[in-house]
Amino acid sequence: MEIKESQIEGRNAVLEAFRSGKSVDKLFILDGCQDGPVLTIKREARKQECLIKYVTKERLDQISETGKHQGVIAFAAAYEYTPLEEIMKDAAESGRAPFLFFLDGIEDPHNLGAIIRTAYQAGAHGVVIPKNRAVGLTPTVARTSAGALNFLPVAKVTNLVQTIEALKKEGMWFACADMDGEVMYRADLTGSIGLVIGSEGEGVSRLVKEKCDYKVSIPMLGKLDSLNASVAAGVLAYEIVRQRDYQ
Amino acid sequence: MEIKESQIEGRNAVLEAFRSGKSVDKLFILDGCQDGPVLTIKREARKQECLIKYVTKERLDQISETGKHQGVIAFAAAYEYTPLEEIMKDAAESGRAPFLFFLDGIEDPHNLGAIIRTAYQAGAHGVVIPKNRAVGLTPTVARTSAGALNFLPVAKVTNLVQTIEALKKEGMWFACADMDGEVMYRADLTGSIGLVIGSEGEGVSRLVKEKCDYKVSIPMLGKLDSLNASVAAGVLAYEIVRQRDYQ
Repeated sequence: MEIKESQIEGRNAVLEAFRSGKSVDKLFILDGCQDGPVLTIKREARKQECLIKYVTKERLDQISETGKHQGVIAFAAAYEYTPLEEIMKDAAESGRAPFLFFLDGIEDPHNLGAIIRTAYQAGAHGVVIPKNRAVGLTPTVARTSAGALNFLPVAKVTNLVQTIEALKKEGMWFACADMDGEVMYRADLTGSIGLVIGSEGEGVSRLVKEKCDYKVSIPMLGKLDSLNASVAAGVLAYEIVRQRDYQ
Repeated sequence: MEIKESQIEGRNAVLEAFRSGKSVDKLFILDGCQDGPVLTIKREARKQECLIKYVTKERLDQISETGKHQGVIAFAAAYEYTPLEEIMKDAAESGRAPFLFFLDGIEDPHNLGAIIRTAYQAGAHGVVIPKNRAVGLTPTVARTSAGALNFLPVAKVTNLVQTIEALKKEGMWFACADMDGEVMYRADLTGSIGLVIGSEGEGVSRLVKEKCDYKVSIPMLGKLDSLNASVAAGVLAYEIVRQRDYQ
């Protein structure tokens, strides 16, 4: 678990940070900015007695890490990683079969953010990323997650293969995205499930793939090999939603 | 239709440009770069008697429009827009019910590229974008499409509402993504279909929405309103694939 000052940029991300009860220490707003979303953010900030500073566009541009601050930057305790045990405990108490995402080497922060957003919206209980070969929970990830990072726990594990082995013993089944797998519509994706998504370039690594119970594929009607990683994660996640709740 | 010199960057995009028979005038390669993908690109370039120049990293960085050239930049005739009539004619001759994407105001070139890639892989016949309020077929779009732009025709129309009206008369049904619509798994998405995707911020515009036959929604189990636009397009497209081919 890491706790340090973190920077949240963009209107959606900042507003969601306040609404989720995140402790925001300081808020920078573009001086003179008075539109609806900014007024809403100010109202939330006042409720929490958060320090507000009005600054110039130049100052915001200078502070910005993403280049897309939309006139607001907040400073808060960084997104904390959640221990996997806690995610599994919450999943067990949720009344729904556990549903986790395992990201094997996603390095693009935009993809990571979009996948966290999708995982949260598809009803997953959490996202698991490996310690190495992965991007952390940066401001770009937070912004691209459109606030989902405030709601959905993310666990960081040392060894994805060992984590998968341990969770299989607890009754979780693992499905990985793989071109040569069974078409997803035909696979049984109900029950306690871990969805494994590989990196854009390499796919799911061999060792991880070998541990998975199913290899599932998305039909490819064109001549390319794959979809964008976050699109593929979304397509697979919603096939799981369909099989769980709409059959 | 526009024809002018265009710049293609990144290994996948350049290789696909050659393989799809695109006329490449000139190829810049990072001097000393000898790995597999680059050798494959060189082989394709020689087949077409394309001019190859070996240049420094600094020179490539300077030429690069995307900042992600991966050591290769090709110059070719720009991606041409295809007249809508031609796309509809090819669809009619394909032996499959027509399936087109209509993008109502997608402005982010990464989203446009990812959606073109998804549309192609999901078996769509083409993508339709409006003349105003939309990004064109830039090198970033080409790169993010991972080469799909070489295979899938894109039409640009003056007025999306009028285009939809005209195609409805030809028997195409229109479904738009809308939070308040029927859950997509329950809607009938078979037959000749136009899938309408709105912009990230605004969704599908009111006038376009009013013309659509169905409003379909993706179940949102989290507290946010939506998914990333390219993820939403992928999820809806593959529900169409399921209903067409896997029921």
